[in-house]
Amino acid sequence: MAQLDETHDRKRLSWVISANGHADFPIQNLPLGIFSPPGNSELRGGIAIGDMILDLTAAAEIECFKGEAREAAEAVSSGNLNDLFALGPAHRQALRKRVSELLDAKGRDAERISMISGRILHRAVNCTLHLPARIGDYTDFYAGIHHATNVGRIFRPDNPLLPNYRHIPIGYHGRSSSIVPSGTPVRRPAGQLKAPAAASPSFGLTQRLDYELELGIWIGQGNLIGKPIPISEADQHIAGFCLLNDWSARDIQSWEYQPVGPFLSKNFSTTISPWVITPEAVAPFRIAQYPRSEGEPRPLPYLWNDRDQREGALDLDLEVFLMTPGLREKRLSPQRVAIASTRHMYWTVAQLLAHHTSNGCNVRPGDLFGSGTISAPTASGFGSLIETTAGGGQPIRLESGEERRFLEDGDEVILRARTRTDKFVQIGFGDCYGKIRSGESIVFGA
Amino acid sequence: MAQLDETHDRKRLSWVISANGHADFPIQNLPLGIFSPPGNSELRGGIAIGDMILDLTAAAEIECFKGEAREAAEAVSSGNLNDLFALGPAHRQALRKRVSELLDAKGRDAERISMISGRILHRAVNCTLHLPARIGDYTDFYAGIHHATNVGRIFRPDNPLLPNYRHIPIGYHGRSSSIVPSGTPVRRPAGQLKAPAAASPSFGLTQRLDYELELGIWIGQGNLIGKPIPISEADQHIAGFCLLNDWSARDIQSWEYQPVGPFLSKNFSTTISPWVITPEAVAPFRIAQYPRSEGEPRPLPYLWNDRDQREGALDLDLEVFLMTPGLREKRLSPQRVAIASTRHMYWTVAQLLAHHTSNGCNVRPGDLFGSGTISAPTASGFGSLIETTAGGGQPIRLESGEERRFLEDGDEVILRARTRTDKFVQIGFGDCYGKIRSGESIVFGA
Repeated sequence: MAQLDETHDRKRLSWVISANGHADFPIQNLPLGIFSPPGNSELRGGIAIGDMILDLTAAAEIECFKGEAREAAEAVSSGNLNDLFALGPAHRQALRKRVSELLDAKGRDAERISMISGRILHRAVNCTLHLPARIGDYTDFYAGIHHATNVGRIFRPDNPLLPNYRHIPIGYHGRSSSIVPSGTPVRRPAGQLKAPAAASPSFGLTQRLDYELELGIWIGQGNLIGKPIPISEADQHIAGFCLLNDWSARDIQSWEYQPVGPFLSKNFSTTISPWVITPEAVAPFRIAQYPRSEGEPRPLPYLWNDRDQREGALDLDLEVFLMTPGLREKRLSPQRVAIASTRHMYWTVAQLLAHHTSNGCNVRPGDLFGSGTISAPTASGFGSLIETTAGGGQPIRLESGEERRFLEDGDEVILRARTRTDKFVQIGFGDCYGKIRSGESIVFGA
Repeated sequence: MAQLDETHDRKRLSWVISANGHADFPIQNLPLGIFSPPGNSELRGGIAIGDMILDLTAAAEIECFKGEAREAAEAVSSGNLNDLFALGPAHRQALRKRVSELLDAKGRDAERISMISGRILHRAVNCTLHLPARIGDYTDFYAGIHHATNVGRIFRPDNPLLPNYRHIPIGYHGRSSSIVPSGTPVRRPAGQLKAPAAASPSFGLTQRLDYELELGIWIGQGNLIGKPIPISEADQHIAGFCLLNDWSARDIQSWEYQPVGPFLSKNFSTTISPWVITPEAVAPFRIAQYPRSEGEPRPLPYLWNDRDQREGALDLDLEVFLMTPGLREKRLSPQRVAIASTRHMYWTVAQLLAHHTSNGCNVRPGDLFGSGTISAPTASGFGSLIETTAGGGQPIRLESGEERRFLEDGDEVILRARTRTDKFVQIGFGDCYGKIRSGESIVFGA
């Protein structure tokens, strides 16, 4: 795990005033991303600081970096973070240290750099954020044990949590082409639908559109095919984290998913937050693995590492907010419909990666994992509507007077992640949001 | 579907003598690929002709092409076929026509070009063949109805073919990072194994390693997210075909696959044949869709197209050969263990693509589909060992005296595809082979 150092110092403030007390991007965070500056479609590497973005290419041009930090800043000039991810932790850490120093209100270079800040800082609100990396492969896990139990109960009432769940970090391959950055509209998908009583299926728009609250995990350095990454080394291969909304069409899912798993019910869009929150930024917020109950199996040796057990998990609050046409009309704020925690992942990130490569499968820099939906044990923390509304049977009542069983056109879903402890400066992931558009244009000739 | 023209003329012979009567690559085939010439690691675009490879970049340099054919030849200079796939059918067809003319023994340019053939032709045996494209996403379907029934019977004796099978082209996402070109050794994977009677799983090398005989399908021009490709246009988006071996570890699969499908049992390696057989090359071998039996459901309108019903399927013989240490020692030839046909795909390629995008999911040039395992109705044509040996219970006896329930270290699996009809010149796909290596190096600390 990453070490704590001066970049985590809670007393450190930035000369970028909006960073100090910022809910997501104080100087202790420094997430990586790809953006286009105002009036320019070029893709550039950047670091979020308060309401601003530090332009890494521009900063490199005025000789802000040297050594590994310079190599790291130069690696993002390709317009994505894949090359930086491939360089590994030392380069990423060197860049963080140097940027923290550059932006530190008391830093050696503070006065000089702040004088020319117009050349290296952009207002984030005027920039366009992009996917941070070319995603080679996307794997979605199923590590939220309360979600697995809740959904299992709906699909298999007699058998909610299958016998393999507590032994295997269950996962499956997802679609990388349809992963989109926060803010991209999501079109309601069509598909084959079959009510249990219907004699045969029909084709139409989903009536059971849902979100799924997930942690996204970016892969850094990869491995060769046939060369597993042992769990003791797995965290060295993690480049960072994001929020991930695994939009799901439950009616398409229930008819299509046997025997080889969900497919078109999931691959129409997956929304991620565009900032890569580094392992260094979350280093103060590591905790012990989700506590096993009495009698639960001990993970097999290839999934067991003492250090990972002690500090491999993450302590982040995760929230889901809904913004609906009715809330908007009444000028009400987005309404929180769930608060959960990454504590409720049954497997650590290192266990997910060690498992994924245990058969010799290779991962590549810029691959993305989803944690699987994360739900708290009780209804106020369920990470999807199918859980919160008990399969659509118990609607949520909103402050606008509206009800929701599933998502309607015009609804917006906003995911947030914030650190929990007061011992360090709070950091957040930035918003992950998407608004539902009508799917009428999708249904043609059918 | 592609039109028949002079490039299909059975009387056309090439001045490349080895092409005439060649089992795979006569002048009527002209498949596309990426190769490195002898002593050179550069990636180049090429076309197979008999025992030779036509170097498209070298041919373009000596002004062999103009117009769309030239643009097509220039598109492969990037070292992969993605850009050519993105150009669409007209460019691919122009390139085919021109190359057919160039290589025609009676062509206008035959004498001139054959005189300088040393500059544009390489002996295939001295070249290295690579993956033909950067594969964005890989989707594996399940369109072999006899396979689905056979395997369903093993995993679910009471319920072999699920109710959705005859309505939905069942498919799921696979792993693109571990797709390898023919000839790459395949390391026996390790994973969690649990015998039905065992109290808990253990970690070890698979004891039930299998092959799966599939047709691979290359995607050409893509679609935008939210804009489905209607079935009437689907074949315009197909760039070509290959063979695909979806290596499978059955013991890992049976323990991991519920509830979201196969994962580590499949993603350790997938082998494909490196030549892209174009839709033009297989145009003479199109047939009507797999005949529905009395009472079978008619496909929903989004999967129905009159022309696709009449000529959307493919008539190719598919074969599986085994080469074992025992056969090698006795100097015997590889032994054929299955002969099946693409006739036995329950869905056409156009139906697979129309279904995949029907929810708005986008595909990109260079995406790859697998058909799913293709089995004939009877045991001599089963496309995997789990079917042929009835779950390992009835071993195959080889001419060497060896038996096989599943694959052993040192075994080599060779897939072949050849056209069936005598009305046109036979073409083939070239070999798709891989040899099993010991997995001892994979099992560490476990």
